[in-house]
Amino acid sequence: MAQENLSAVLYSPGDLRLVHLPVPEPGPNDVLLQMHSVGICGSDVHYWQHGRIADFVVKDPMVLGHEASGRVVKVGSAVKHLKVGDRVAIEPGVPREMDEYFKTGKYNLSPTIFFCATPPDDGNLCRFYKHNANFCYKLPDNVTFEEGALIEPLSVGIHACQRAGVTLGSTVFICGAGPIGLVCLIVAKALGASQVVITDLFPERLALAKELGADFQLKVTGKVEPKQLAKKAEDLLGVQPHVAIECTGVESSIQTAIYATRPGGVVVVVGLGSEMVTLPLINAATREVDIRGVFRYRNTWPMAIAMLASGKVNVKPLVTHRFPLEQAVKAFETTRQGIGIKVMLKCDQEDQNP
Amino acid sequence: MAQENLSAVLYSPGDLRLVHLPVPEPGPNDVLLQMHSVGICGSDVHYWQHGRIADFVVKDPMVLGHEASGRVVKVGSAVKHLKVGDRVAIEPGVPREMDEYFKTGKYNLSPTIFFCATPPDDGNLCRFYKHNANFCYKLPDNVTFEEGALIEPLSVGIHACQRAGVTLGSTVFICGAGPIGLVCLIVAKALGASQVVITDLFPERLALAKELGADFQLKVTGKVEPKQLAKKAEDLLGVQPHVAIECTGVESSIQTAIYATRPGGVVVVVGLGSEMVTLPLINAATREVDIRGVFRYRNTWPMAIAMLASGKVNVKPLVTHRFPLEQAVKAFETTRQGIGIKVMLKCDQEDQNP
Amino acid sequence: MAQENLSAVLYSPGDLRLVHLPVPEPGPNDVLLQMHSVGICGSDVHYWQHGRIADFVVKDPMVLGHEASGRVVKVGSAVKHLKVGDRVAIEPGVPREMDEYFKTGKYNLSPTIFFCATPPDDGNLCRFYKHNANFCYKLPDNVTFEEGALIEPLSVGIHACQRAGVTLGSTVFICGAGPIGLVCLIVAKALGASQVVITDLFPERLALAKELGADFQLKVTGKVEPKQLAKKAEDLLGVQPHVAIECTGVESSIQTAIYATRPGGVVVVVGLGSEMVTLPLINAATREVDIRGVFRYRNTWPMAIAMLASGKVNVKPLVTHRFPLEQAVKAFETTRQGIGIKVMLKCDQEDQNP
Amino acid sequence: MAQENLSAVLYSPGDLRLVHLPVPEPGPNDVLLQMHSVGICGSDVHYWQHGRIADFVVKDPMVLGHEASGRVVKVGSAVKHLKVGDRVAIEPGVPREMDEYFKTGKYNLSPTIFFCATPPDDGNLCRFYKHNANFCYKLPDNVTFEEGALIEPLSVGIHACQRAGVTLGSTVFICGAGPIGLVCLIVAKALGASQVVITDLFPERLALAKELGADFQLKVTGKVEPKQLAKKAEDLLGVQPHVAIECTGVESSIQTAIYATRPGGVVVVVGLGSEMVTLPLINAATREVDIRGVFRYRNTWPMAIAMLASGKVNVKPLVTHRFPLEQAVKAFETTRQGIGIKVMLKCDQEDQNP
Repeated sequence: MAQENLSAVLYSPGDLRLVHLPVPEPGPNDVLLQMHSVGICGSDVHYWQHGRIADFVVKDPMVLGHEASGRVVKVGSAVKHLKVGDRVAIEPGVPREMDEYFKTGKYNLSPTIFFCATPPDDGNLCRFYKHNANFCYKLPDNVTFEEGALIEPLSVGIHACQRAGVTLGSTVFICGAGPIGLVCLIVAKALGASQVVITDLFPERLALAKELGADFQLKVTGKVEPKQLAKKAEDLLGVQPHVAIECTGVESSIQTAIYATRPGGVVVVVGLGSEMVTLPLINAATREVDIRGVFRYRNTWPMAIAMLASGKVNVKPLVTHRFPLEQAVKAFETTRQGIGIKVMLKCDQEDQNP
Repeated sequence: MAQENLSAVLYSPGDLRLVHLPVPEPGPNDVLLQMHSVGICGSDVHYWQHGRIADFVVKDPMVLGHEASGRVVKVGSAVKHLKVGDRVAIEPGVPREMDEYFKTGKYNLSPTIFFCATPPDDGNLCRFYKHNANFCYKLPDNVTFEEGALIEPLSVGIHACQRAGVTLGSTVFICGAGPIGLVCLIVAKALGASQVVITDLFPERLALAKELGADFQLKVTGKVEPKQLAKKAEDLLGVQPHVAIECTGVESSIQTAIYATRPGGVVVVVGLGSEMVTLPLINAATREVDIRGVFRYRNTWPMAIAMLASGKVNVKPLVTHRFPLEQAVKAFETTRQGIGIKVMLKCDQEDQNP
Repeated sequence: MAQENLSAVLYSPGDLRLVHLPVPEPGPNDVLLQMHSVGICGSDVHYWQHGRIADFVVKDPMVLGHEASGRVVKVGSAVKHLKVGDRVAIEPGVPREMDEYFKTGKYNLSPTIFFCATPPDDGNLCRFYKHNANFCYKLPDNVTFEEGALIEPLSVGIHACQRAGVTLGSTVFICGAGPIGLVCLIVAKALGASQVVITDLFPERLALAKELGADFQLKVTGKVEPKQLAKKAEDLLGVQPHVAIECTGVESSIQTAIYATRPGGVVVVVGLGSEMVTLPLINAATREVDIRGVFRYRNTWPMAIAMLASGKVNVKPLVTHRFPLEQAVKAFETTRQGIGIKVMLKCDQEDQNP
Repeated sequence: MAQENLSAVLYSPGDLRLVHLPVPEPGPNDVLLQMHSVGICGSDVHYWQHGRIADFVVKDPMVLGHEASGRVVKVGSAVKHLKVGDRVAIEPGVPREMDEYFKTGKYNLSPTIFFCATPPDDGNLCRFYKHNANFCYKLPDNVTFEEGALIEPLSVGIHACQRAGVTLGSTVFICGAGPIGLVCLIVAKALGASQVVITDLFPERLALAKELGADFQLKVTGKVEPKQLAKKAEDLLGVQPHVAIECTGVESSIQTAIYATRPGGVVVVVGLGSEMVTLPLINAATREVDIRGVFRYRNTWPMAIAMLASGKVNVKPLVTHRFPLEQAVKAFETTRQGIGIKVMLKCDQEDQNP
């Protein structure tokens, strides 16, 4: 009898079910993984609620989940660097073509890339999942499965901070203290930022930001005048920040990020909101404040593992809730309500530890 | 009796007069120049017509002109690298403070910079003008005074193409075939761009663009749908361009530039229009198409002189009209009407040659 | 009966034979090519004469040749972007593993890369050859097969100039006017270098360099004092060069390159000589003159094709001799004697045109 | 009567005297400083012992000292950002000319730069010293004078790590655990390096390195085979390091740094030894391991102050000895004997605190 593979499948907006799917067979370059920990991302919830993000539409049932780690249980014939029993973190994007983007090291921009839980590609919120072994990274003994799963959001922070050019002595303005704002904070500090000011609507998020190293917290009320808020950030830092990392996608917040940033600086757009956004472009252009987006990440797993293994970054406080895979719907509901920061699903019935 | 110094002075919007001002005395780090050729820039005309650009307001009478070359007639006591008789091109921006921008090589961003014909700083459309010798660059014998004056607009093209990262084999989309679009074209080609497509409303500008090396010309009608125009540019090039250089400042054109550009590419914003602009930010951000402005230029005179001296770039066709300084108002009127490309004022009564 | 596949096989040092090998069968990601033009490289001759280069030793018979172009005659099942009849240029290096180098766009540094005619990997100096289709690039109609084959040496020049940071107005010092020095010259000019000085022992090579755009030629005699030669290069340019590209591998020439280069500049080491070289390291270090090597190239074919198709670079004068494949030994002997610049072997019996 | 200004003057090799010089008068752009703390650098000792370093020869009596901080006691007429009583750290290099190096942000490479205690320019190991105010940086209240003085060696570490490209997750190999090796270690960690291995001859230096964050220490014996030592460093790290920072100047150690570094990595040459050095150039070049020197530093004071003020780096353990200015000769003798790490001279008779 084939092994059962309980999986969290989205059938249509609002219709998330736990069903049994066949255990997949790894191809020559794949490994089969017994999943251990899978974090819930805002995008998972968005697909669940709305069935689409931008041009990506859920047309067929899709397994959710892409912040994940697991244990190797089967190894494809061509795989050399992994063996059964290895604990791995999963990079969810796997380029399908050796196109110009892949060849130049920007594989995240490859238009045909496979990506877990971006329709039509299945994710890994299930018991057993196969993945290209080249995008599975062995975890050292002192890095937990949950830390392994958190490498995915951490990677967003790494890529954002790298695109921003955060370095020694940088002053950084982060808009939004949700999971992504917080990983940007953690990474900015690890890269040598001297001072970080972070905004949010909710005091409890700002409190966690403070705990994670934010030098200043700025509570935003619903109604805010961008230039005034920019001035407040500058006043707290004593200077205009070198870098602003916008994690809310809200128009007024993006405007604030531009006004706040020092001439020659960078605004990184991480949060996504409306398709069309009105910006003070002359202000940005004549002060040579660059506006740079990020699309996921690339080449971040090795450095994230190095940082976690060396104890240089601590992402453990991000996990505020845990549910067994069987309670996936309840876990999604928790995230939907904005409770806590990161909700972790535990997929291994034998081991529900971090 | 003090020498007369005929100067083109803007008193108030619309009120441009030729008056006699005293010949200035150079300080220890200055040279006094007998002006030879001064080009008229769109910004000169804008100040003439409207008395302001953004936050720069003409409150007191101001000498116009900042695209200039002349001959050294007096040398400050501390000046070593220039002597009487040297022919020089003038970089109009001179940093006043040794601030972080100057120390890091981004002196164009220094907020206290002196800049010719940006209020309240006087320009050099006159007979005699003093300037910091460190920002006067000796012209080789085979570079004419007019080429020297054209280094200023050429510098805009150099800085824009450098910020864009134009290099060997780049495909480039230039929006607007006015003087700035054309210098961007010239520089892009000199940097190794393989194919350039350029847009404009006017066929005669596109014809000149073709002459100067544009591989494709795209006539734009008043009403244009950005995504369609972007597609046309792509169809002409056969690929999405690596780089778009926007020189019109028109909102729909900036949108077009974003839609057209390849993932991982760059849109450089050179043209300035409305303070607030509505942009397809998600489109740019998720394809990592960077939006970078330019504020004038920095460190471009030496390379421009090297290129002109070696014959690698030819800017001479840009000059379509010449007037003696005495006819400055007529010359300004010519530029205002959009006739020709570059109008040159000849300030030396003894030598009205190019 | 299987089709014959005449191939130039090196059995042991000095023992180069034309033998019939089976026509290979392309795998799913391969194309089978009918070879058209294959240039002879110095490394081919070195293997022929000495059987090794550094740690690469010819232990088993190996087909020579890696500067090549041909026509697609069979297409693997997974190949989408090529079809039978396409004319292609071949990038000889194909990464075997998706390692950190490949993922970061530096696949040329991948230690397990396949590379034509580097032992133990066979080259393509033969009638029929199969290659990974992702590393075969379609040639436009206006680019000849020989230009296609010359993309390989041209790529060395592109990678060297990119590593050197050659840009608009750069002054460049090239040591050695053999095939590699000449492609560096061609590329430097295409990237906007204003002035190039080039050295060589042989006047005829310097004459060709002049024809290809070198501004100054500097004849070197056998015995040369590095500091004096550096001074001569500076005197010709009027300034110290921004960049030196060393293509000889001779110790005194590398020393000259360092002495000649301007503070903050770059010396690129292309030529390879002795394993251990004595250098004026303090001179380089305290003037922040970087010493950068190049290992082959990466991501150069698309830009090379763009440049050739647009007519921006002309490599045709490099081909000075042509032989049919059957006369490979004679062709190798010609290269060995240092006659001419590039010797081209014509592998297609039906079409011996450029 | 003019105020006395006790100064440590080097008259000729071995002849260091404490003499009374006039208190200097600040020019319009200067400040007069009452010196507080001045660290002794190896170069000070070298001038004392040998009277020269490379081409810099002590011909006239010269005040020593360039790692310094003090308090403003008089302000030049044109100085705006400092006032009497401000505590400042001194950047010892002040460009004299607005040349291409200064304009491009590389003022440390300007050949005519003034530099404290590099002949013929006087240093600041004295009671009163005037300096260009633009190169004096105000210290926040929570940064001590000694930390201010230590910004100079810290700057060497910052510039070296920046030239090396140390970033998140970098593995770093530092050769030499003297003061410069240790500041490189501190900065590499602050920039996010995950693992650092450091070498030295002396166990007590390695012990301090461990205390300051070195993950691995490697004791070197007098006789060492470069390839073996490189292998040891790799074995400790588990991978080849991305970056090697060579701080000894010893030929075998530079060779070791090259062999150890990963393909595509960087060797930064900080230590200076013999004029000519024999290197495995082919090994470096074919693996694209760049060799980059550093000449002092540029633009490092603001970021160093930001890091010290935020508590991100701790340089206090570097100070192992303190002497009043009057005992300068004894202090120099201590440094000469290699005792401790950093010896600090206290120039303010009223305040000998850190």
